[in-house]
Amino acid sequence: MQINDPAVMAEVEAAFARYEQALVSNDVAVLDELFWDDGRTIRYGGGENLYGIGEIRAFRNARSPQGLMRAISRTVITTFGTDFATASTLFVREGMSGKVGRQQQTWVRRPEGWRVVAAHVSVIADPGA
Amino acid sequence: MQINDPAVMAEVEAAFARYEQALVSNDVAVLDELFWDDGRTIRYGGGENLYGIGEIRAFRNARSPQGLMRAISRTVITTFGTDFATASTLFVREGMSGKVGRQQQTWVRRPEGWRVVAAHVSVIADPGA
Repeated sequence: MQINDPAVMAEVEAAFARYEQALVSNDVAVLDELFWDDGRTIRYGGGENLYGIGEIRAFRNARSPQGLMRAISRTVITTFGTDFATASTLFVREGMSGKVGRQQQTWVRRPEGWRVVAAHVSVIADPGA
Repeated sequence: MQINDPAVMAEVEAAFARYEQALVSNDVAVLDELFWDDGRTIRYGGGENLYGIGEIRAFRNARSPQGLMRAISRTVITTFGTDFATASTLFVREGMSGKVGRQQQTWVRRPEGWRVVAAHVSVIADPGA
């Protein structure tokens, strides 16, 4: 199993960048497209635990589009073989003084393209602050 | 790619159970064994962001062994093909009144066995409380 094969990495980096752009612009259609369309997809969010694409979609559709812009840092993508990857990043938004967000995703290559099959987002007091 | 192949699921369930038992008993040797021994392993914890197995090991070795017992719920393991899996679970500990923990792990079959390559743990106000 090759780790961080350059061609696979380029694909996942592109998918990750597309997701990030969709997130900060609240492009719900793209966010929805990039999550695995399955009842087993899980997203633990900043204040909610979503089991299945149905709950994830309902959350996206109800979310305020305000204040989603963010700056990411210490992003690490690691690919395993040709079909699996993890993506971890820290983030901060305006008004998050003294706090830091963490986003971690598991990506799988599905017949329809790369999809997030599990995600976890949380915010903590910045241990480096 | 077969999802939730029973034989693969049984392996990951066993590894997950072994990790859980090691966690609540603070069996640092087993916790260390079950994380990928690599500089790219990431663990976002309840109050810390750990990059690389070195930081993860230092955290484990310094952690208080008190109060680690917990009850888990809504655990979902999903396997993808023969070498990749995600594991998500909620948890509560004594004294966590009104709060709920979330733990999400990405497991990869390495030559040495199933290993966690990325993990994220956080605690939020219980949205169901």
